[in-house]
Amino acid sequence: MDRSSSINKKTDGDETHRNEEQRVNTNNNDDDDDVKGASTEKTFEGTEVPTWQKQLTVRAFVVSFVLGILFTFIVMKLNLTTGIIPSLNVSAGLLGFFFVKTWTKFLEKSGLLKQPFTRQENTVIQTCVVATSGIAFSGQFSNNLFGMSEIIAKQTTEANNSQNIKNPSLSWMIGFLFVVSFLGLFSVVPLRKIMIIDFKLIYPSGTATAHLINSFHTPRGAKLAKKQVRALGKFFSFSFLWGFFQWFFTSGDGCGFVNFPTFGLKAYDNRFYFDFSATYVGVGMICPYLINVSLLIGAILSWGIMWPLIWNRKGDWFSAEYKSSSLHSLQGYRVFIAIAMILGDGLYNFIKVLGRTMYGLYNQFQEKKAKLVLPVDNHSTSPSNTPALSYDDQIRTRLFLKDQIPTWIAITGYLTIAAISTATLPHIFPPLKWYYIIVIYIFAPALAFCNAYGCGLTDWSLASTYGKLAIFVIGAWAGASHGGVLAGLAACGVMMNIVSTASDLTQDFKTGYMTLASPRSMFISQIIGTAMGCVISPCVFWLLYKAFHDIGIEGSKYPAPYASVYRNMAILGVEGVSALPKNCLTLCYVFFIGAVAINGIRDAVGKKWSRFIPLPMAMAIPFYIGGYFTIDMCVGSLILFVWEKIDKAKADAFGPAVASGLICGDGIWTLPSSILALLGVNPPICMKFLSGKANARVDAFLAG
Amino acid sequence: MDRSSSINKKTDGDETHRNEEQRVNTNNNDDDDDVKGASTEKTFEGTEVPTWQKQLTVRAFVVSFVLGILFTFIVMKLNLTTGIIPSLNVSAGLLGFFFVKTWTKFLEKSGLLKQPFTRQENTVIQTCVVATSGIAFSGQFSNNLFGMSEIIAKQTTEANNSQNIKNPSLSWMIGFLFVVSFLGLFSVVPLRKIMIIDFKLIYPSGTATAHLINSFHTPRGAKLAKKQVRALGKFFSFSFLWGFFQWFFTSGDGCGFVNFPTFGLKAYDNRFYFDFSATYVGVGMICPYLINVSLLIGAILSWGIMWPLIWNRKGDWFSAEYKSSSLHSLQGYRVFIAIAMILGDGLYNFIKVLGRTMYGLYNQFQEKKAKLVLPVDNHSTSPSNTPALSYDDQIRTRLFLKDQIPTWIAITGYLTIAAISTATLPHIFPPLKWYYIIVIYIFAPALAFCNAYGCGLTDWSLASTYGKLAIFVIGAWAGASHGGVLAGLAACGVMMNIVSTASDLTQDFKTGYMTLASPRSMFISQIIGTAMGCVISPCVFWLLYKAFHDIGIEGSKYPAPYASVYRNMAILGVEGVSALPKNCLTLCYVFFIGAVAINGIRDAVGKKWSRFIPLPMAMAIPFYIGGYFTIDMCVGSLILFVWEKIDKAKADAFGPAVASGLICGDGIWTLPSSILALLGVNPPICMKFLSGKANARVDAFLAG
Repeated sequence: MDRSSSINKKTDGDETHRNEEQRVNTNNNDDDDDVKGASTEKTFEGTEVPTWQKQLTVRAFVVSFVLGILFTFIVMKLNLTTGIIPSLNVSAGLLGFFFVKTWTKFLEKSGLLKQPFTRQENTVIQTCVVATSGIAFSGQFSNNLFGMSEIIAKQTTEANNSQNIKNPSLSWMIGFLFVVSFLGLFSVVPLRKIMIIDFKLIYPSGTATAHLINSFHTPRGAKLAKKQVRALGKFFSFSFLWGFFQWFFTSGDGCGFVNFPTFGLKAYDNRFYFDFSATYVGVGMICPYLINVSLLIGAILSWGIMWPLIWNRKGDWFSAEYKSSSLHSLQGYRVFIAIAMILGDGLYNFIKVLGRTMYGLYNQFQEKKAKLVLPVDNHSTSPSNTPALSYDDQIRTRLFLKDQIPTWIAITGYLTIAAISTATLPHIFPPLKWYYIIVIYIFAPALAFCNAYGCGLTDWSLASTYGKLAIFVIGAWAGASHGGVLAGLAACGVMMNIVSTASDLTQDFKTGYMTLASPRSMFISQIIGTAMGCVISPCVFWLLYKAFHDIGIEGSKYPAPYASVYRNMAILGVEGVSALPKNCLTLCYVFFIGAVAINGIRDAVGKKWSRFIPLPMAMAIPFYIGGYFTIDMCVGSLILFVWEKIDKAKADAFGPAVASGLICGDGIWTLPSSILALLGVNPPICMKFLSGKANARVDAFLAG
Repeated sequence: MDRSSSINKKTDGDETHRNEEQRVNTNNNDDDDDVKGASTEKTFEGTEVPTWQKQLTVRAFVVSFVLGILFTFIVMKLNLTTGIIPSLNVSAGLLGFFFVKTWTKFLEKSGLLKQPFTRQENTVIQTCVVATSGIAFSGQFSNNLFGMSEIIAKQTTEANNSQNIKNPSLSWMIGFLFVVSFLGLFSVVPLRKIMIIDFKLIYPSGTATAHLINSFHTPRGAKLAKKQVRALGKFFSFSFLWGFFQWFFTSGDGCGFVNFPTFGLKAYDNRFYFDFSATYVGVGMICPYLINVSLLIGAILSWGIMWPLIWNRKGDWFSAEYKSSSLHSLQGYRVFIAIAMILGDGLYNFIKVLGRTMYGLYNQFQEKKAKLVLPVDNHSTSPSNTPALSYDDQIRTRLFLKDQIPTWIAITGYLTIAAISTATLPHIFPPLKWYYIIVIYIFAPALAFCNAYGCGLTDWSLASTYGKLAIFVIGAWAGASHGGVLAGLAACGVMMNIVSTASDLTQDFKTGYMTLASPRSMFISQIIGTAMGCVISPCVFWLLYKAFHDIGIEGSKYPAPYASVYRNMAILGVEGVSALPKNCLTLCYVFFIGAVAINGIRDAVGKKWSRFIPLPMAMAIPFYIGGYFTIDMCVGSLILFVWEKIDKAKADAFGPAVASGLICGDGIWTLPSSILALLGVNPPICMKFLSGKANARVDAFLAG
């Protein structure tokens, strides 16, 4: 679940652009349009902004709870299958609007409506859902937490002693989340005003979401939203029913559409097939073409060329005794070359974004000094000392500064929770000593600030890179003999949680700023959402874990690829590279340097050419799991491409809704399917794929 | 291949209505519009009508040859799978237009075009293709000719001595067709003028085809035709590629999409499943809703209710020793109840249409007498003695009467061919004595006249009913000990050929009349088309027969259902009902009477209600072969229904083109697939469907 890595944030970024375009078509209340004369807030003039207490309605949290469960399922499923998570903001926004609008319409007709549905309430729902499903992501069930389990540990021969293993259990997961997840929230509070009012950072995803919510609440936008909701609903049902239909044919391993050898059995053995997954077709429609093409290139390069070639060296490069799934055999090349590329890409972007952050901060303070602006925390509510502000920004700034959250609350909250978690975490993970935790908590706010700032500039969260940093630093500090692998993974979890929450929630504040939602109501919504997420996410994970016994096993329906990747990273950090098969380290160096170089070239040639150069991070993902989901995603791309050729306006307006429908329908089918599995209901039929020869043998066997 | 039975002609009829509607939308040159003031021929004023020799171009026959092969494949495939053949007139018209238009456009650009493409030439192609593919139908490869074979004979225990068996062979089939097929042609010639000029019969299918061809040659019609051709082409490719894709997964019996247990394995065992056949989805789109619903009702009644109930009486009603496919067991009920319904429906309609024919003829002659019209065969070319004629009819009648075919040619031709075939047929089928043949040839012209007249009135050809008459009469005359079964089947072939050609070709003359094509060019086109058909059809049948070794075997890909039905009819006629299992005869009576009664009710309640009453003939088909193709056809209906709800105009204009594309693409895939089978190329993969239990066993078997 490398959401914070480039793949995802780039997706978010593209989503932004698509929304931006769509906005232009439907309603030109663009942020930049302030300059051009049009104003969002003017269209909302006369609409009263409710007080922050009134923005927090019971119905909003009921809807958030329902959507929170839905998106937790989706995020969890995506995490456990490939780790690619597209931006679900649009579907969250659409569905939230749909639910509350239906509800209020119903009440309006029966005359019971006390409070109309406002965009502030919509923002509160959005924020709460993002916070809830964010836990499913930043809780890292499929990477470091699950990477601690015996299932993953047994797949390697290194560091699988009991000290380095911690099997999942509902109780410690919920506890861990509660003591860790709120830290990010409190570290964000003081940053809020600096990032949004003082630095005026863009936060593309947050801005796009705000545009969406604003547009829903104008009459024209509501009409389009209704149509989009209908499209979403149609494809939601289709995708759900398709999942249901597929289920009947999956009695046993290798059965069903998910194992369809679309390109023949030979290609299937090399994991090239279209697996009829509505989810990944939808994901492909949301992700930019470049991501999908990069994935495909990566799949062809690895499973099409490299792995078969390396497999031919069996007996020479590595012992022929091992199965291909052993880390001492082909699997070692797969995992470590992928890690090398991810690290190369991550390092490049870390340095790049950090550089831009430093440069941006330097400029900000220079300007501030020049303008003699008052210190950050003054309570000035008058915009008079910033005369260049537009009408929209004046109103927004006034409302944003009206409901303050005192800094002392944030600091007290942070320190209290830090103290509690320092005390409890070593009990959960014995190798994670209390002084490691204190070190993390001292550095975390600074890193959170960096990440929130960088994300505001580039829409690119580096949480997973900070997490990897923690793995290596804390792992090496603890050492292999003292459970360094477990300590590293746990530290990664703590670090990622804080850093990723910081950037996500600042995005939310930007959304709130643009929809005139009160920071206080946002903050409370985030607290409630996080609390819900801390309970929902482990429960959903637990349900899947209990229902599907092959979770985490390579080649199964839920391979949880990043669990293995993270654990192996931790092992690498703690034990070094001695155990790698022959030439693997050399190849790792090559791909590490390659990833850095490709990124460098992408930045050097400019936007015109860089869109033809694949992204190393995207290429690395299929290295480990195979090409099947890239085929799905390319099918999604192809559908969108053809649709755009036929009717660009319609494709832009409804593409994201259709894609969301496909993702959500298949995602929510995970719930009934796992319940069926828990109840021991087996699908009645197996759709099996046999070679002609095997089929003749089976026919003979069945006949007598 | 009960094409001449109600199913098909009703389909034709409906096709007409659909075309009629379409015409109204696009171009109002309707026949009846003469009265309303619009005139087809006025729009064509100034367009020269080429002489009859010039209407017969080489390119026309090249195109006809190609299309003839295409449609022969389609008709043969349909015959051998279910026996339901929809009207392919629209696709023949569209494709003929497309080929010649592309060709002439190409020549026009290169400056080599000597003769423009006229609607007369188009009619010549249409006629030739209909004649060619008509042989595939009226040659009865899948019913009586194939019913003589050992494969079919072995499925029963009665009359399978060598005297009653004649295995297919390329040489005798071509010979048989040549001595039989031209008879119908010559018997039609003298009828031509009476039916079309004097009686002014409607011939709905012929009229619809003429409208189509006329519309293609107006600028606006050509534009629509182009779009329709594009839609056809798209779905043709899709359907072809889908067939190709499916092929890869069919290594072995019970493999592939054609055996997909869509509704579960239990339903599959009762032959209820969606078999992903593009052909039958297309057929379902062309057939009226009532047919599809009737088929579905029949399937549910038989395979869903009756057969399971009867199967439970195993050991009581019939011996449990027999397999369900034995005629002494369940299969007996299936076949004979279906025959009873077909005969009941046939008899009712035979009497009804014959009654209307007699009544119509009586009226015609009464009118003639009153008007003192000159005798039929006068060479008057002036329309002055029929003053009520419209402008269109005046021109059409003048041209229709210009190029006469002397009656003596027709009579001489008929007698010569009758003599030749009387001499040769007994050599091909020893039990078919020469005097049987003479009797058939004496009665045939009268029956042909009746059928052509009835078809002109009602669009309903009764050829198969006349054929069944021949089976019973000649079969009983010959007697069981003298090869009565073979004699009956052969006689049926001869009779159906003449009677069905008579009605089909009179339809063509009507088309020619309305498109100003010369009767002489039509006649020659028919002769050439028939000759082509006499060679193409047996070759195509032979290819399939050699390529697929399970043709004619129940439950296989090509069960040739009517082969068994016809053979059993012949046995019934010759040997009586003694061999039927218990209660079968009672059930047959019930269903025979039921079929008559339902038809009676349909006629009694009027059009408003009759469209909700199923057709017994349609209900009988799935009795024998099962429900799978009715599911396909209902899916086709559903698609069309939804399409009509969304955009009626578009559905009306493009529905038939899309359906034709689906049928043609899958149909032509039969060619490469049978060549692959002949070359011994086996598909690489088997997509198998196993129950959960069987799958566990197979997995254990494959693992060890």
